[in-house]
Amino acid sequence: MDWREAVNRIAPVSGEWLDRAWERLDNLTKPRRSLGRLEEMAARYVAIREEPKPLITGKGVFVFAGDHGVVDEGVSAYPREVTALMVQTFLAGGAGINVLARIAGAKVTVIDIGMAQALPDAPGLIQRNVRRGTRNLLREPAMTREEAEQAIDVGVEMAVEARKQGLSVLATGEMGIGNTTPSSALFAALLPASAGEVTGTGTGLDEVGLAHKTRIIEEALHRASGDVTDPVSTLASLGGLEIAGICGLCLGGAALRMAVLVDGFISCAGALAAMRIHPPVADYLFFSHVSMEKGHRCFFEKEGFRPILDLDMRLGEGTGSAVAMLVLESGIRIYNEMSTFAEAGIAPGA
Amino acid sequence: MDWREAVNRIAPVSGEWLDRAWERLDNLTKPRRSLGRLEEMAARYVAIREEPKPLITGKGVFVFAGDHGVVDEGVSAYPREVTALMVQTFLAGGAGINVLARIAGAKVTVIDIGMAQALPDAPGLIQRNVRRGTRNLLREPAMTREEAEQAIDVGVEMAVEARKQGLSVLATGEMGIGNTTPSSALFAALLPASAGEVTGTGTGLDEVGLAHKTRIIEEALHRASGDVTDPVSTLASLGGLEIAGICGLCLGGAALRMAVLVDGFISCAGALAAMRIHPPVADYLFFSHVSMEKGHRCFFEKEGFRPILDLDMRLGEGTGSAVAMLVLESGIRIYNEMSTFAEAGIAPGA
Repeated sequence: MDWREAVNRIAPVSGEWLDRAWERLDNLTKPRRSLGRLEEMAARYVAIREEPKPLITGKGVFVFAGDHGVVDEGVSAYPREVTALMVQTFLAGGAGINVLARIAGAKVTVIDIGMAQALPDAPGLIQRNVRRGTRNLLREPAMTREEAEQAIDVGVEMAVEARKQGLSVLATGEMGIGNTTPSSALFAALLPASAGEVTGTGTGLDEVGLAHKTRIIEEALHRASGDVTDPVSTLASLGGLEIAGICGLCLGGAALRMAVLVDGFISCAGALAAMRIHPPVADYLFFSHVSMEKGHRCFFEKEGFRPILDLDMRLGEGTGSAVAMLVLESGIRIYNEMSTFAEAGIAPGA
Repeated sequence: MDWREAVNRIAPVSGEWLDRAWERLDNLTKPRRSLGRLEEMAARYVAIREEPKPLITGKGVFVFAGDHGVVDEGVSAYPREVTALMVQTFLAGGAGINVLARIAGAKVTVIDIGMAQALPDAPGLIQRNVRRGTRNLLREPAMTREEAEQAIDVGVEMAVEARKQGLSVLATGEMGIGNTTPSSALFAALLPASAGEVTGTGTGLDEVGLAHKTRIIEEALHRASGDVTDPVSTLASLGGLEIAGICGLCLGGAALRMAVLVDGFISCAGALAAMRIHPPVADYLFFSHVSMEKGHRCFFEKEGFRPILDLDMRLGEGTGSAVAMLVLESGIRIYNEMSTFAEAGIAPGA
């Protein structure tokens, strides 16, 4: 399945399945709708799975790693080498995402989709490098259209693989020094918004650094204004390989009727690209948390979504989606495991 | 240990232990403070436990059940009998709290501290009935001071028992038809606030019902104005037995250096009473979620706390604290299990 085929398969979730889910939810031993968003998540999961009592059959976090040519412009507080160092920490099991995925019972898969530095084969690492880092998006398109499509297809492929392994809940994650810059550029182009509205300090820029980064993004938007004719070309011109991979995971996950938990700022840029390519994909996405990175709230306000969590996190890696997975699972298990009034021998109340 | 002794044992958590926790947190393989509130929770847990790497040694949800004389005034959409029916559902394992506590790995203990209807002994049920429902707080004090103190002591006893069983994280829960009315009355008296600010629709009143309930609370506050001379007498006059039990669990948990997750609107009324009795108890409390019940946001605004979750829940039982337990555990395990930069062989960044 390539990304075009995935898009062709994605329809909005069915209202009939939603109604069926709400009928059960409203008969569980609690005042109607009193579990709030847990119930909403459960209803949507039922409609995604199209099963009367859909279990979670398996959970996975997919961490796409890529590097960014624009780091040459001094937009990050960390050097590019940290991408590979952190990926090695993921593979060794000592990073934040490893701890949180363990708690959620989810397997972590790391995909080299665009790292500058090649890593040796290792358990948990998938080698799908499209190119060794993007070009500098200030000066030229970060990727060719072909490279961007290839990276989206890697994301779709991960969803296909996940489905084969029996997973039903996927989570996005990423690692890539400098990747708040392409994310901000994508938000600016796709929401749309001004560079100032969606550019933040990333992992630790000071005010001067932030002003510089904002200017870089403004200039890049100007440079790209000719080539951003559709969402894929926008992604190619201003995005990143890991962001395109996340876009593909959203499309592939939805096409195969899996729930996709979208992590923070960078993951949402990938999810937004997927929604611009094909809006019905949104029915399959769960937005995990609102990041401290400036601009993430702007995404939620403009798109009308509400994050599951608001914990001042801004790490990425998939850490927000791993924590939100626990909340999604809570909703799904409420749906499956709570007694109905009839089962408990109580007349339904008001 | 009675509640006075518990109060004598509670001191604010130590700044030295907090500093020690932050030193480790700031050396984990992530940008400084990038796991936001997960890190704050972990630091506080370290300071509560006073251990360099404090594990969660066991988790329990304590569901205090009680009835309310004020139900005679038509303040609830459900009849009083539902308290016992729901408690039986808890004991059978089919309620929301059972499902969510299972996910969190927490044991559920139900305490009959003030139910109108006696239940036969059953596994998971603790018989500590102080009286078979409170008096009607519109007409007279809901409890005598002795009854209120006895109920607080039941909560302290549960914490002592939890400690003996090796638990380190407690969660509050409750069941009691009509118990948003005494909770609103307590918020009004203790925050303080007007009855209108803190009175909501509970499990499903309509607008006429809400206006009636607000008037009842206003009149009760007027009736009680003479006897609310200190937090315990306020609790006795306007509260409920399960609310007093929750107050005691907060005090006992803090005295024995355990973390206490406070559930929603009703649980917060009990926690507020504990904080008014002895403010340093707040260092040991984690506020799980903000309920849809009107007035809960008012509590957070006036007291300056921030809930862990905001999921439009309004069920009670301890359902919010069970979900928040997953988030607290995520923070604690991040602290214990993530690699430091030194362990990962990376120089700390900006």
